Amino acid sequence: MSTPANFALPHVAKLHAYTPGLQPTESGWVKLNTNECPYPPSPRVAEAIRAEVGAAGETLRLYPNPTSAALRRVVADHHGQGLRAENVCVGNGSDDILNLLVRAFCTQTVPLGFTMPSYSLYPVLVEIQDGRSEIIEFDRSMKLPLARMAGSAARAFFLTSPNAPTGVGFSRAEIEEALKVFKGLLVVDEAYAPFAQEDAVPLLARYPNLVIVRTLSKAYALAGIRIGYALAHAEVIDVLDRVRDSYNTSRLSQVAAVAAIGDQTYYDGVIAKIKTTRDRYVKMWGGQGWFTYPSQSNFIFTEPRNARGESGPAVAKAAYDYLYAHKVLVRYFPSHALTASFLRISVGTDDEMLVLNQSLEAWRKIV
Amino acid sequence: MSTPANFALPHVAKLHAYTPGLQPTESGWVKLNTNECPYPPSPRVAEAIRAEVGAAGETLRLYPNPTSAALRRVVADHHGQGLRAENVCVGNGSDDILNLLVRAFCTQTVPLGFTMPSYSLYPVLVEIQDGRSEIIEFDRSMKLPLARMAGSAARAFFLTSPNAPTGVGFSRAEIEEALKVFKGLLVVDEAYAPFAQEDAVPLLARYPNLVIVRTLSKAYALAGIRIGYALAHAEVIDVLDRVRDSYNTSRLSQVAAVAAIGDQTYYDGVIAKIKTTRDRYVKMWGGQGWFTYPSQSNFIFTEPRNARGESGPAVAKAAYDYLYAHKVLVRYFPSHALTASFLRISVGTDDEMLVLNQSLEAWRKIV
Repeated sequence: MSTPANFALPHVAKLHAYTPGLQPTESGWVKLNTNECPYPPSPRVAEAIRAEVGAAGETLRLYPNPTSAALRRVVADHHGQGLRAENVCVGNGSDDILNLLVRAFCTQTVPLGFTMPSYSLYPVLVEIQDGRSEIIEFDRSMKLPLARMAGSAARAFFLTSPNAPTGVGFSRAEIEEALKVFKGLLVVDEAYAPFAQEDAVPLLARYPNLVIVRTLSKAYALAGIRIGYALAHAEVIDVLDRVRDSYNTSRLSQVAAVAAIGDQTYYDGVIAKIKTTRDRYVKMWGGQGWFTYPSQSNFIFTEPRNARGESGPAVAKAAYDYLYAHKVLVRYFPSHALTASFLRISVGTDDEMLVLNQSLEAWRKIV
Repeated sequence: MSTPANFALPHVAKLHAYTPGLQPTESGWVKLNTNECPYPPSPRVAEAIRAEVGAAGETLRLYPNPTSAALRRVVADHHGQGLRAENVCVGNGSDDILNLLVRAFCTQTVPLGFTMPSYSLYPVLVEIQDGRSEIIEFDRSMKLPLARMAGSAARAFFLTSPNAPTGVGFSRAEIEEALKVFKGLLVVDEAYAPFAQEDAVPLLARYPNLVIVRTLSKAYALAGIRIGYALAHAEVIDVLDRVRDSYNTSRLSQVAAVAAIGDQTYYDGVIAKIKTTRDRYVKMWGGQGWFTYPSQSNFIFTEPRNARGESGPAVAKAAYDYLYAHKVLVRYFPSHALTASFLRISVGTDDEMLVLNQSLEAWRKIV
């Protein structure tokens, strides 16, 4: 038997793995490509991990709490709005939650809906499930395509708000409109909501077809510990728990997340700093004639222009390559007409943004 | 819309979540129910976690290495036998690996095979996938059912060796026989292999249809950090990676696992202690007339007899209840004829086993 992969199911054999952003192992990079937080997590996180580890890591021999029970309570309390632990499901990153949703609500004949462009993991999850995607395209205005969502046959619809990779946020009123017109479960992926003007959490009490997905990877500066969660009606949480692995989160990740969510004062400061930096660069790049979407996230989606005032896919690719050659990593999405002329730049520290901008300045003087 | 769970797919709506062993939150229990290691992990684990966390958890803001690359290399080197990193896939516990295997090799029409009784998660994973199970029943001899495996239509077959919950191990020669007669991918779940006389790793080079699954939850005393892995032909690993989440393991879990696998001397001592304790109790309970399978794992499967010399499901249940009332937790599996008369007792420290045995002694004097 020369090809053991032949045992794989046909749809699996065809799969291409999701391509995550580059995670360079050597130092020296200005890393603005995966929307990580440029500031460290709350100091309470390190304290909580050290306390759990103790002198000899004695508790690590024991399984974690299978429902992340303490964390569910802390998440519910943090969001308030009458939410209780039974309205929370904790995942191994929000990718785990998205995966559970696909497995519970999508098949070959029951489509999962999502907009394009948005988080590029969605179609990958559907393909792994051998499911069907129903894609609703944005136009360059990036307005919420409500009319088309109203006609959607999807059982569940993933809506990224604020959107990635554009950074455009949808208002609570717009999300409420979508909840009224869409006939299935509306999953609002709020990975970047802590950087937005408002979120959809207050709608949960009135719309049992609303699921909100959050992550600690962005605003909480904890991409390394893999914690995300869903907020939803208890019946939806119950469904996710049936599909979820019993021990999907580690002991250390659970205590780290509890500590982080308990220190909102610290994160309010971090988020305020990131928004200040973000708004300065959105204004600057917009002011120099680069079309730049208003960002409600911790990244900026901008359409660079070269020395001749040109924009477009070749120009964006040239800017990306120049930055890469100068050890500045940003993200470039060449495969969609609405993204191929843009760069997605994670908001870094002021120092990192200075290095980035100096490189961009040097690049745009090249004739 | 009063029942949002109605959106769930029919097979999901019918699911019952896997029932993990009880994880009591209060202290005072002698916990011998989930085959955790009674001894702490290598001291290098706590050191490695502290080193990664540093003063302020600075690196936790960054995503983990998406392939657990360093860990794959360490695992390959540890097992030797010509294995390379490309022969290793790292999972969020071995449950994650088992789940990837089900998703890659099982559907409604392509069955997954496994023996019964064995790890009770297998049928749960198949049900979540809306797949089909092909179950091959053991008889009380617990001999490997080779003839029936030869006739199996399964694309992949999960064989637990040493078996859970019986603790019976299969020899390398028996596994090789199974590899010859079974026409699909043979997945040998070696969660308990470090406690066995031999393992199937040396067969990997000659049998591209062999997959070995390991966990750090048992012998490495790291159930709390959620790391498991698969060893297989590079083509099979490639398939698993396409179904796997890019960031399925945390930064802390990766460094903890690397440190643990690097300290085999420590674990050799732990495993030797557990085997000594195990063999003493297997002999003791066998000697007092309790049918007890020879164990090659870190637990003992024994059929208790009461003061009147009776055994059977009611007797096993009574013993379980008595132990529970005296704050000793063991595992009881009432739902299968071959397990319902038995208790599965994880091997604890000598002190824990003394408490357990005193309770059992007291119970078997009750008339």
